[in-house]
Amino acid sequence: MSSTPDIVPQLLALDWGTSSLRAFLMHDGQVIDTRHSAHGIQHLPLPGRAGFEQAFAAIAGDWVRHWPQLPVVASGMVGSAQGWREAPYVRCPATVKALAEQNTTVASGLGQEILIAPGVLYDEPGELPDVMRGEEIQIAGALLQNPQWSERSCILLPGTHSKWVQIEDGKIVRFATYLTGELFAVLSAHSILGRLLPAASEVKGGTDVAAFELGLANARRSGPGELSHQLFGTRTLGLTGRLAPAALADYLSGLLIGHELVSGLSGAGNELAAVPLVMIGEPSLCQRYVRSLEYMDQAVSAVLDNTAPVGLWNFAGAARLLARSTPGTE
Amino acid sequence: MSSTPDIVPQLLALDWGTSSLRAFLMHDGQVIDTRHSAHGIQHLPLPGRAGFEQAFAAIAGDWVRHWPQLPVVASGMVGSAQGWREAPYVRCPATVKALAEQNTTVASGLGQEILIAPGVLYDEPGELPDVMRGEEIQIAGALLQNPQWSERSCILLPGTHSKWVQIEDGKIVRFATYLTGELFAVLSAHSILGRLLPAASEVKGGTDVAAFELGLANARRSGPGELSHQLFGTRTLGLTGRLAPAALADYLSGLLIGHELVSGLSGAGNELAAVPLVMIGEPSLCQRYVRSLEYMDQAVSAVLDNTAPVGLWNFAGAARLLARSTPGTE
Repeated sequence: MSSTPDIVPQLLALDWGTSSLRAFLMHDGQVIDTRHSAHGIQHLPLPGRAGFEQAFAAIAGDWVRHWPQLPVVASGMVGSAQGWREAPYVRCPATVKALAEQNTTVASGLGQEILIAPGVLYDEPGELPDVMRGEEIQIAGALLQNPQWSERSCILLPGTHSKWVQIEDGKIVRFATYLTGELFAVLSAHSILGRLLPAASEVKGGTDVAAFELGLANARRSGPGELSHQLFGTRTLGLTGRLAPAALADYLSGLLIGHELVSGLSGAGNELAAVPLVMIGEPSLCQRYVRSLEYMDQAVSAVLDNTAPVGLWNFAGAARLLARSTPGTE
Repeated sequence: MSSTPDIVPQLLALDWGTSSLRAFLMHDGQVIDTRHSAHGIQHLPLPGRAGFEQAFAAIAGDWVRHWPQLPVVASGMVGSAQGWREAPYVRCPATVKALAEQNTTVASGLGQEILIAPGVLYDEPGELPDVMRGEEIQIAGALLQNPQWSERSCILLPGTHSKWVQIEDGKIVRFATYLTGELFAVLSAHSILGRLLPAASEVKGGTDVAAFELGLANARRSGPGELSHQLFGTRTLGLTGRLAPAALADYLSGLLIGHELVSGLSGAGNELAAVPLVMIGEPSLCQRYVRSLEYMDQAVSAVLDNTAPVGLWNFAGAARLLARSTPGTE
């Protein structure tokens, strides 16, 4: 989006993850300018605190010099123990208001204080604990734009660490993380399964639908504990010539996504026949999931691209940083 | 075992895997001398055929010069597509006789022919294919020593690629591979789960039994598809302080072994209440599995250490290489 200097911005919002940093100038809940840098928290220009300061100055230094009163908020891994300053987790059930009340601030080095959003913790006795950091803000954005999902919905954020999140009465009440994307990456790069896979650069054309659906089908019919056997199938389907080398990555992808869906769809309380299933994420990955959910006879109510800017607007409003302008929803 | 020069050997048996090479001088089914080298097929002293010849000459050159008529047999990855010469798979149901009839030979460079055992393929329509190479010879050894297991048994070979093998009427009728050991290694070394694990050298003492059993318990209660969520628990149990860093690897180990057992024990046709469950493998790993099987209320009939030498004796007998001496069992 190009700069629109006739509108005075009301918020500088930072979506600061592991591998990238995005900065949004916002007015009235809308993004009026966007910048992107590769300075994710694991790719800073300098080690430690100075790296965060320099990355912030590089992406937004001119903005904050031009509008020195502009409030600044940030979400994502920037608030982790490895981030600029740790913003401790808020426990479920978690609202935007709770996130705003438990914020953490850090001085930017340019004079501004940056309000960092906390992550969310699910931690109930007898169950596996779970954590998110960044997704809670994307969810806050989706719910601000679509209040009808606040009462009851399931929000799926596919990715390296896919999240299945249950929303009730505007609260994150429960969620589960699946290691799907990371399993695919690690097994492709470092396990015996990767040895038969051609390099990504050698694979032409799109998804091999038959191979992808064979992975989904094996997931759908799997019993407990079968994943590690079915993973070995990535090798044996190649060795026996049942799948061509170029198709094996799609089998592996279908198998891993399929296992996530089988578990996610059966998750206690999801009751997905009755509540909307909403996806937030990178469009081509979401399309892969939509196709997979259709294969599992599950409809998707909506697919949203990055809702982090609107979520940060919502968070800033709940923290009363927008008090003199259009308020966010608390 | 020290050399016993007063006994004339009848067989030179090679157990030649990916990462190591073992050579056994045998007489009357007994090992009379053993040597070990690091020249597994991925660690040869030279690339290609010359590497195999040199590794063979280094470990057994003096033996074959001293007993030039000594028959030589080999099993394991030496017969794979990346081996000295490919020994194509025998299909299930597979007997030692079938392995012997479909052997492959290679000239050693020292004058001897080496008889290489084929692997075994399970490949039925509508099911995932599966392969083994090396385990079939270990099984041939176990069945020669314990003929009572030939009629019906389940043989479990835990490891990097664990095998669950069903035996009926002396045949390998069906088997399934689980990627358990490799998943543990790859996730520990290359995934986010490994970041909270202390280096192995920093961990003192034995297994953290409570953490290991928490992994087993989660596996036992898991529904289909849940592994990748439960894997993320390795991280969240550490982040929340529910498990100490030194215990996380044991949780991960228990979880992965547990998932293998849940699936293996429910495998179609295993009917483990009625047939003996026999384990073959490295003793400390077998102990970990025995403990896990007990946790799942499954008794183990026997635990055997390396049965490859006896298996190679059985194979050589079936191939009539021991015709002038004590025969093996066909």
